[in-house]
Amino acid sequence: MSRFLSGQYASLKEYVPGEQPQDKKYVKLNTNESPFPPSPGVIAAVTDEEVEKLCLYSDPESKILKGMLAESYSLKSENVFVANGSDDILNFAFMAFSRENGAAFPDISYGFYPVFAELYNIDAKIIPLEDDFSIDTKKYLNIGKMVVIANPNAPTGKAIQKSEIEEIIKSNPDNVVLIDEAYVDFGAESVVDLVKKYDNLLVVQTFSKSRSMAGARLGFAFASAEIIKDLEKIKYSTNPYNLNRLTQLMGVKALEEQEYYDNNCKKIEENREFTVSELEKLGFSVIPSKANFIFAKHEKISGEKIYLKLKDKGVLIRHFTAERIKDHNRITIGTKEQMQILIEKLVEIIKEEEK
Amino acid sequence: MSRFLSGQYASLKEYVPGEQPQDKKYVKLNTNESPFPPSPGVIAAVTDEEVEKLCLYSDPESKILKGMLAESYSLKSENVFVANGSDDILNFAFMAFSRENGAAFPDISYGFYPVFAELYNIDAKIIPLEDDFSIDTKKYLNIGKMVVIANPNAPTGKAIQKSEIEEIIKSNPDNVVLIDEAYVDFGAESVVDLVKKYDNLLVVQTFSKSRSMAGARLGFAFASAEIIKDLEKIKYSTNPYNLNRLTQLMGVKALEEQEYYDNNCKKIEENREFTVSELEKLGFSVIPSKANFIFAKHEKISGEKIYLKLKDKGVLIRHFTAERIKDHNRITIGTKEQMQILIEKLVEIIKEEEK
Repeated sequence: MSRFLSGQYASLKEYVPGEQPQDKKYVKLNTNESPFPPSPGVIAAVTDEEVEKLCLYSDPESKILKGMLAESYSLKSENVFVANGSDDILNFAFMAFSRENGAAFPDISYGFYPVFAELYNIDAKIIPLEDDFSIDTKKYLNIGKMVVIANPNAPTGKAIQKSEIEEIIKSNPDNVVLIDEAYVDFGAESVVDLVKKYDNLLVVQTFSKSRSMAGARLGFAFASAEIIKDLEKIKYSTNPYNLNRLTQLMGVKALEEQEYYDNNCKKIEENREFTVSELEKLGFSVIPSKANFIFAKHEKISGEKIYLKLKDKGVLIRHFTAERIKDHNRITIGTKEQMQILIEKLVEIIKEEEK
Repeated sequence: MSRFLSGQYASLKEYVPGEQPQDKKYVKLNTNESPFPPSPGVIAAVTDEEVEKLCLYSDPESKILKGMLAESYSLKSENVFVANGSDDILNFAFMAFSRENGAAFPDISYGFYPVFAELYNIDAKIIPLEDDFSIDTKKYLNIGKMVVIANPNAPTGKAIQKSEIEEIIKSNPDNVVLIDEAYVDFGAESVVDLVKKYDNLLVVQTFSKSRSMAGARLGFAFASAEIIKDLEKIKYSTNPYNLNRLTQLMGVKALEEQEYYDNNCKKIEENREFTVSELEKLGFSVIPSKANFIFAKHEKISGEKIYLKLKDKGVLIRHFTAERIKDHNRITIGTKEQMQILIEKLVEIIKEEEK
């Protein structure tokens, strides 16, 4: 750090995103992107005329996009927030809602939660997952802090029940319960409709996963009008024009072609089942996943070795070094062809190890 | 505010951006956008194939774009930072460099500086402009705080000399001196090359003004490698993927066609001189501007009345309500045709007032 940086950041450890190597072409199964391009209407919408209009600012209120999201999820525009990726929203939420009472989240979850907690010097109650990597939701009842739970959880892929989340919401009426549904479209149960019932629920989603727009940066959230107003206040005090003009347009078009994305999700779920069954034949144990990734551990070969050998063979997966999960790897579910390459390379690696 | 919002934001007044009305088509001279589209290479770069690739994340390190910016400004990549608009960078800078010693900036300048100061509860030394709206740079010598100066200043359009800025940098070696050069390409003198000489200088620029990409969200900054590392730390602790994939690509293409943008700046400067001379004939006094806007006051008609009457006639300019500047309006310089419409409408308004 420079001698100018405020001392409060001296010990801050920033988030480390998955590798985005620019050097060579990998079968990229490490950052949970969609293997499918955006829908035809999204691509058609980006005309020369729209690119020319980039000389003008985007609508900071994102009225059309918010209206379309409200319609798609049977809520009102006042219940919708949009931002530059869901990380942007998580950042705002930690900033806004956890500074007085603190925040509670699992030890194994999205690696950004503890970074936000440290950044804002927040009293973080980190609750270990059970031995089988499940979340015991009873541990979040009456907790008196902002609750942050990813459902399905990452990197495990495990989902929890809507009824369990509702109990958490009900038992923490004076704190925001943030459900991070980045991966909800691949088989888990969303709690979006509970926004009408509880004013302390904040549901965060993204166009980066099921809607094939990771590179466009578009996150969205649903909550009571009061919570949305607070998030807007933070946005207008940090970066009002946080959304690209084309991204707003593409978001609207994507919502008009939901069937295309639903079909993609079905394909991912099929490829997930295929991959799990192949991996199990090869001696992996795989945690039951409701996400577009799986979390898998081999009976004999270390997580690090599998990660490094796969990388060497041109397949990128995500390896974590935290003690509890260092022998698991997170593998994004891509196309059938990509998963077949993964399996082939794993067969090679296992053979090499048996020599 | 909701009952969940941390009390520290209770009195926070967010930034109010210029109107971006979506209802009808205005001659839009209120948010300092370029009237010219991005260059041909930028438009040609946004192919269907590139839009398809939006399913993948952008490079969080923005290596290619940083390299191109470094080359264009004769610096190294380690001296370059890129973000989601220059507001993003200003936000990070206030967060990183002003929390211990505070920040000093003019009373009349970019309206976002006091918002950041309030957001981070920063000791702000607000230094009034002189009576002629100039900055007395001597007042920033040995100030012991982060210094934030827009050059040219907004909304006045007045520029200061490079030598004056250098004195400020030299006299505040233990604090960051942030020069906000959002409008520097329209005739003012940049201090970018001083980055090689002083490790406490941070120069912030943007693609939103001279480079016709307001809607694409791309800000950039130059500083010592240490300051850049600090900004990266804040970025990776808030929103690592803060740049749209297409925006990175368009940024590179824009830098390859600098001549196009230089020509546009020349046109804006010509239209500025034309507009100033016409306005003076109509009884306006105009502050000498080095920006793509002018700050003008009529001898008889109030600033608010001119703003409202112009809006009624389909021309949007920016009106501020702060006491010192309420009789001035900030007028963006657009095409010759746009400026002619402005003049016509002002002639009408003056006639109506004389009745």
